[in-house]
Amino acid sequence: MIRIGILGYGNLGRGVECAVKQNEDMNLTAVFTRREPSSVQILTKDAPVYSISELLNHQNDIDVLIICGGSATDLPVQTPEYVKYFNVIDSFDTHAKIPEHFANVDKAARESGKTAIISAGWDPGMFSLSRVYADAILPSGKTYTFWGRGVSQGHSDAVRRIEGVADARQYTIPVPSSLEMVRNGETPNLSTREKHTRECFVAAKPGADLKRIEKEIKEMPNYFADYDTTVHFVSQEELNQNHSKISHGGFVICSGRTGWQEENQHVIEYSLKLDSNPEFTASVLAACARAAYRLNQEGSTGCKTLLDIPPAYLSRKSGGELRESML
Amino acid sequence: MIRIGILGYGNLGRGVECAVKQNEDMNLTAVFTRREPSSVQILTKDAPVYSISELLNHQNDIDVLIICGGSATDLPVQTPEYVKYFNVIDSFDTHAKIPEHFANVDKAARESGKTAIISAGWDPGMFSLSRVYADAILPSGKTYTFWGRGVSQGHSDAVRRIEGVADARQYTIPVPSSLEMVRNGETPNLSTREKHTRECFVAAKPGADLKRIEKEIKEMPNYFADYDTTVHFVSQEELNQNHSKISHGGFVICSGRTGWQEENQHVIEYSLKLDSNPEFTASVLAACARAAYRLNQEGSTGCKTLLDIPPAYLSRKSGGELRESML
Repeated sequence: MIRIGILGYGNLGRGVECAVKQNEDMNLTAVFTRREPSSVQILTKDAPVYSISELLNHQNDIDVLIICGGSATDLPVQTPEYVKYFNVIDSFDTHAKIPEHFANVDKAARESGKTAIISAGWDPGMFSLSRVYADAILPSGKTYTFWGRGVSQGHSDAVRRIEGVADARQYTIPVPSSLEMVRNGETPNLSTREKHTRECFVAAKPGADLKRIEKEIKEMPNYFADYDTTVHFVSQEELNQNHSKISHGGFVICSGRTGWQEENQHVIEYSLKLDSNPEFTASVLAACARAAYRLNQEGSTGCKTLLDIPPAYLSRKSGGELRESML
Repeated sequence: MIRIGILGYGNLGRGVECAVKQNEDMNLTAVFTRREPSSVQILTKDAPVYSISELLNHQNDIDVLIICGGSATDLPVQTPEYVKYFNVIDSFDTHAKIPEHFANVDKAARESGKTAIISAGWDPGMFSLSRVYADAILPSGKTYTFWGRGVSQGHSDAVRRIEGVADARQYTIPVPSSLEMVRNGETPNLSTREKHTRECFVAAKPGADLKRIEKEIKEMPNYFADYDTTVHFVSQEELNQNHSKISHGGFVICSGRTGWQEENQHVIEYSLKLDSNPEFTASVLAACARAAYRLNQEGSTGCKTLLDIPPAYLSRKSGGELRESML
């Protein structure tokens, strides 16, 4: 049994707890939180909740610590710190800062002899794998990533900060005609506006100026100005009822050519349709915990990403079973 | 530069030659053939064609030998034999015999200190990877593989052997309604007939009994009896003109559930649409050659499959480049 510790108990931490339940070779040792532990109710009956201040007392009970904090401020500090004491997994997803985060975690992990897997999830994560495999196979290929239809937490938050908005949900949606072009093997240069549209469901406060809110959303730089955005005003009840799932997904599509004169075309497509973004991400983290455990037992230490992990290491099945049943 | 040798120059060998041209870190050393070398015209101007009997004289000029023979009789003999002298790649695709082939190649490779990657291609190969990743992430998931629309060489050959048939091409086609069910997250138990249909384009010899041919096709055990099969009689010209591409493809779809009560559903889909089955397979073999070269340089010897290869090893880009641009 691989003994798992969870640090941080938001949507992602709870998702990891559910994933550990589904993986019969894993056991939840404990959840660690910055909140008052008695205020945190978890789902697993026989696992304790401890204060983060007690984490280092549990080095002998935990094989892999899955760090479920945010990429903005938590993970850049927590992952390099806790890899001094534990094999760790995180879902660091600020793409531009991955090289720096990797270097920090790698240095600490090499010193401690622990194994870290960072930036696990679906993007970065499974989508990165699809991009790398496609690019390795089809050197002439061009790869496109489309996200959605799905909820963007960052964009939803941005709408909620507008005066007069009580609550909001923002969906990112691929432009169907662009998706279709790429899927048919065309390799267009697509602008930001041509790749995705944005759709907002907004519950306004009583008496708020809806026209102003809509204008502020559509003109918001970085978040909405470069996109075609649709705004729907709905009641809080409708938001709760029809827009409560944190669904997401997307497509990685590569088209490339082979042959002496590049006369033949190939299209590789990987897609995800996810009811729960955090639970799917958590499921990837759990599989990575298994890989980190095995790699560390073999003496393979330092920082890694999914690009460095032999796929079989993620599976609960042995190499022989995989060759017999899944190859 | 990675120096590549090709053994066998049929459709697959020629595909590897084209793939080597597209990969700037690879060079074709030579093609080896069982035929009279002077009778074999290859595409690369500056690479020689040698008799297979000369292969062992070229151990110092070849980093990786890509073996392009058939799975029935060539590869079970050639791969364990030549891994005594070379790092080797093959596309062994008789699924039921992979464990035995793996064991034979592994034993020889460990003794010689060489690295082999077997069963590379798209199924086994990229489809296997998709199955293993999906199963590792979603332990509750059910995975389906659909092949096609594409040309089955084995079924085309079977039709050609019928008396009165001059030439034939057989397409394997997924049943659209079943594909749609699985894509929508349903997990039906599908019979052979419910998964695929078969479509044959047949050029009959003059005066042949078309009714008998059609009946013999549709009732042929193993090949057609368990499927709904459509037969079209066409001219040889039409066969040549509209059915000469060795196109193929397919879908690996996994749907599984997460959450404490498994209340959320996820669908993972990987699909390929290939103009040329052998050229795409060859492109996977070339990427595997890069991985075998690197693994061997690191002292990682023995037999492997794509399930054992860190994805980054397949890429011509460095780990740092991949993290910066593709993760």
